Amino acid sequence: MTYYIAKTVTKSYDEALAAVTEALKAEGFGVLTEIDVKETLKKKLDVDFQKYKILGACNPPLALKALTAENQVGVLLPCNVVVQEHADGRVEVSAMDPAAAMQAIGNNKLDEIAGDVRARMERVLAAV
Amino acid sequence: MTYYIAKTVTKSYDEALAAVTEALKAEGFGVLTEIDVKETLKKKLDVDFQKYKILGACNPPLALKALTAENQVGVLLPCNVVVQEHADGRVEVSAMDPAAAMQAIGNNKLDEIAGDVRARMERVLAAV
Repeated sequence: MTYYIAKTVTKSYDEALAAVTEALKAEGFGVLTEIDVKETLKKKLDVDFQKYKILGACNPPLALKALTAENQVGVLLPCNVVVQEHADGRVEVSAMDPAAAMQAIGNNKLDEIAGDVRARMERVLAAV
Repeated sequence: MTYYIAKTVTKSYDEALAAVTEALKAEGFGVLTEIDVKETLKKKLDVDFQKYKILGACNPPLALKALTAENQVGVLLPCNVVVQEHADGRVEVSAMDPAAAMQAIGNNKLDEIAGDVRARMERVLAAV
C-alpha cells in the first residue's frame, strides 16, 4: 500500500519549505506544527542526519468534519508533509496519503473527506 | 483494523495531560508538538468543541531507526497521543497504534520498531 505521495522538486530545501507552506495555505491548510528532524537528532543523539522537516498541516473545516465522523481520528492528525534533502542534493516533498490512512480506520464517513484531502495534497505537490 | 489504543482515566483533563507527559518521558518520548484542537477550532471556525489535545511524542533513538529503515516514514511521525474530555465528563487517553500504521507500509524492518513503540505506549496508558 502506498502511504504517501511524493515529488522531487527543482527548488532548494529552503525554497521548497517556503513554497510548500504557501501552497498549503492556498488549499486551506495552516502549518500547526514543525519538527526539524535533523536538528532534533543532532541535539538528542549527536547524530548527523540529512535536512528533513515534518510539517503538520491542518485544514480546520475538514479536521472538524473528520473528528465529528470519527472521534479518535486525532491520533492520525494533522496531515504531515515532509521536506527533505537527500545525500545527492535532491530535494523531495512528500505528504501522507490520507486515503490510505483513513482506509485503515474503516469508517466510510471518512472516505469523502480523505479523498478531498488527498486531492488538495496532490495540488500542493503540483504547485511546488 | 484498530488504529489506536485507548484508556478512560479517573484523572481530570489537566491531570491526565501532565501524567501522560510524565509517562511518555519515562518511556523515552519527548513531546515535540502539541495541538489544542478545541482552541484551534474556536479560533479558526468559532466552533465549540470538547477539550481535545494532540501530543506529538518522539523517542529519538527509535525515530532514527525507523527513518533509517524507511526514509518516508516521517509522514507518519511523531507518534500521536490524544487527551480528551467527552461530553459526559469522561477523560480518555488514546495513542496511535504504531503496529497498525507500520503494517500499512509493508516494510518488515519496521515491525520490531513498531512492536517496541506499541509496548511503550501500552505502558504509558497503564501508568496514567
